[in-house]
Amino acid sequence: MGEIRELLRLADRFGEVNRRPIPKVPALRGKTVVNMFFEDSTRTRLSFDTAARRLSADVVTFSASTSSLNKGESLRDTVETVESLGVDALVVRHSSSGVPWQISSWVKRPSVVNAGDGCHEHPTQALLDCYTIARTSPVLADRYGPDSDDFDFQGLLVGIVGDISHSRVARSDVAAMTALGATVTLIGPPTLLPPSLAGWPVEVSNDLDSLIGDLDVCYLLRLQRERTAEALLPSLREYRAIYGLTEERADKLRSDALVMHPGPANLGVEIDADVTRRPCSVIGAQVANGVSVRMAVLYYLLGSGVDLVNS
Amino acid sequence: MGEIRELLRLADRFGEVNRRPIPKVPALRGKTVVNMFFEDSTRTRLSFDTAARRLSADVVTFSASTSSLNKGESLRDTVETVESLGVDALVVRHSSSGVPWQISSWVKRPSVVNAGDGCHEHPTQALLDCYTIARTSPVLADRYGPDSDDFDFQGLLVGIVGDISHSRVARSDVAAMTALGATVTLIGPPTLLPPSLAGWPVEVSNDLDSLIGDLDVCYLLRLQRERTAEALLPSLREYRAIYGLTEERADKLRSDALVMHPGPANLGVEIDADVTRRPCSVIGAQVANGVSVRMAVLYYLLGSGVDLVNS
Amino acid sequence: MGEIRELLRLADRFGEVNRRPIPKVPALRGKTVVNMFFEDSTRTRLSFDTAARRLSADVVTFSASTSSLNKGESLRDTVETVESLGVDALVVRHSSSGVPWQISSWVKRPSVVNAGDGCHEHPTQALLDCYTIARTSPVLADRYGPDSDDFDFQGLLVGIVGDISHSRVARSDVAAMTALGATVTLIGPPTLLPPSLAGWPVEVSNDLDSLIGDLDVCYLLRLQRERTAEALLPSLREYRAIYGLTEERADKLRSDALVMHPGPANLGVEIDADVTRRPCSVIGAQVANGVSVRMAVLYYLLGSGVDLVNS
Repeated sequence: MGEIRELLRLADRFGEVNRRPIPKVPALRGKTVVNMFFEDSTRTRLSFDTAARRLSADVVTFSASTSSLNKGESLRDTVETVESLGVDALVVRHSSSGVPWQISSWVKRPSVVNAGDGCHEHPTQALLDCYTIARTSPVLADRYGPDSDDFDFQGLLVGIVGDISHSRVARSDVAAMTALGATVTLIGPPTLLPPSLAGWPVEVSNDLDSLIGDLDVCYLLRLQRERTAEALLPSLREYRAIYGLTEERADKLRSDALVMHPGPANLGVEIDADVTRRPCSVIGAQVANGVSVRMAVLYYLLGSGVDLVNS
Repeated sequence: MGEIRELLRLADRFGEVNRRPIPKVPALRGKTVVNMFFEDSTRTRLSFDTAARRLSADVVTFSASTSSLNKGESLRDTVETVESLGVDALVVRHSSSGVPWQISSWVKRPSVVNAGDGCHEHPTQALLDCYTIARTSPVLADRYGPDSDDFDFQGLLVGIVGDISHSRVARSDVAAMTALGATVTLIGPPTLLPPSLAGWPVEVSNDLDSLIGDLDVCYLLRLQRERTAEALLPSLREYRAIYGLTEERADKLRSDALVMHPGPANLGVEIDADVTRRPCSVIGAQVANGVSVRMAVLYYLLGSGVDLVNS
Repeated sequence: MGEIRELLRLADRFGEVNRRPIPKVPALRGKTVVNMFFEDSTRTRLSFDTAARRLSADVVTFSASTSSLNKGESLRDTVETVESLGVDALVVRHSSSGVPWQISSWVKRPSVVNAGDGCHEHPTQALLDCYTIARTSPVLADRYGPDSDDFDFQGLLVGIVGDISHSRVARSDVAAMTALGATVTLIGPPTLLPPSLAGWPVEVSNDLDSLIGDLDVCYLLRLQRERTAEALLPSLREYRAIYGLTEERADKLRSDALVMHPGPANLGVEIDADVTRRPCSVIGAQVANGVSVRMAVLYYLLGSGVDLVNS
């Protein structure tokens, strides 16, 4: 929790760097960051890539499809090879839960950053979501001033809407947002909620309409279209009717509420295109803040301790 | 037109940079150029890549096949995400005409560079072709001196030979070359000429042999082999017999004429391998000049205005 | 031979660079290295990539699958295009023997580095293997001191075990190790040994067990699993029983012997997982030294002669 706030404060400093005409600092010059993406993700890969370059690190991209994993090389062998090259950080995305932790147990020197693993965790997404709430919520700005670095979410009500049971974003957001003091309610059809919520510090609801006027943050998750084939949903149309943030439903949001989405959105399913362009939508800010937050994470792990943030 | 000449003059300055032992200037340090290639193109991608690096920009490559477009992300969503990362230029190649313009209407801050769209335009190819003519044509050197920066093509006769109707290169070359004063004749079989040429400031011919001795520039287009399957051509052999720049036909060129091709060439179809190695062929110079011209375009769009060309 | 020792001495200097907190020198600033990998190879590509970046060169990656070779562009045309862009080195990996030599005959300015061609050669692998032996063999350390730069392998017995007939690593290792004075014995089943060894300065054996106690270096080759389908081997299990470095067999190695493998290993076939983790295994050191050796090769070919190793 102290660590979350420390990273968010660092993100503030890098946000300032990112607004300079030349948004680049020599903090990680000579360090090598390897992007190991075993699962496609344009936005997350480009975000880490951009973050590392702005810190002057060298970036090497390793994608599963072009790698020797094609010839049956084991994951462990691959990771040990990359470690032996003398790299400093491995940014790992994998479709199986736990792979970044497994990799982290294999390597000695490089830091391992989880860029999303299966249905498990997506910690930098949670950090950028918290940072975006802190810097854009009118409710928090009123309460603490616009630039407060307390990152205190006490009394803030966040609704996370959609396919909770398959969502690493939901898992990580619940952990980070509640750690900062927010109240989180998970909202979705019973088939897409986890079978048990024991130990999760959250409320649960199947009724978005009764809650929407109370939310400070309405966070829509991406709905995988496969869920209908899996018989977890009758149809996308019915999902939209009950849980989609349509224009009508968005009209019921409070005027100081935020609309968020981790992207990429299924426009016309969990959110309407028009709603993503309203002033309450901070989806673009989430992406922009992702770079600052990932700079903070890489700097926190690899920085020399000496203040190299100013060039 | 003034803009074309300004870019060609800038290309001259970067050509000088490219002849240095360390061909690199800090002009775009801290700027990020994203290569968004939705259609394969080794030569154009590497050329932009090299140009951006020589200006000290950071280059991020985004290829459609590894991108989240695979999961049904919309093009607009992708573009807005990339914009939100805080990048400075999008270099876009797409198989559909108009996509770079469409993208340009969606984004606010980044400059958009068209690196070839469908059968529509390929403006940096036209610039490098004009630059190559200006710097290698013996006719122009005689007339204005070898280093003239007037870029005046009055009286120059350019023949563009081949599949005009599907060629973005032809479209862009006609626009740029005629703007500089050249006379352009399009040469090809009737099935590969556009149905209407209304408004194009060009002549048309089906008879290469009667014109070849008059040309100052003989510009061969790449013939897509698919055209025979589409019944637009009887056979590649017959095409070569009438429109190919064979050794025999090349012997009829004037001694001060240039042979050009945008590459990659179908050797033995629109041009014979031997001809590409004659002194009149400036195909290699086209590629080399492509880097200088693309440096000029990126600098023109992203440069600070301050003279950072000299390191 | 003088050249091999010169490269190994250079590798020593870059090994020192690689142990610095910021392992980067400006030696090749402004130079462009193009990785042309027509065959997948994570480890070799990342190794060259890392080496080039640590020398401050710009690295451009060209992979066959994303290239215009897909549209039937000829290899020669592609290479000439890349040369025309004004690059300094082409690092070439290809599944056909002789391609790097062919490419080298086509280009004028860029240096060509063979990163592995078919069953023919893999020279940088041989250099890194020799360098690793020189820096880790207790036998050599006893004889010449731990940091000797004589690189004299007289009296050293190296056994290369496995599929010799298809191995470019074996070919290059035999050439380099015997040039430095080592005695090399090739060990494998008759079906995987070359039909003729005329002119090779090596011994041959089918009996690993009778030799293993004499070896200073036990070098295992990767066994392509396809060999069983090709009826060159009865089964992987039988291969392991006779030629695999199992735990039992590894117990017979002398205490000052080294175990090496070019990677990626088929664990449980040519080598057991446990053996790769014993102190005698220097497989990780091979990968790490690969970066130093490739820095040496690139610097040797592209360096200005001026001493730019120290930043």
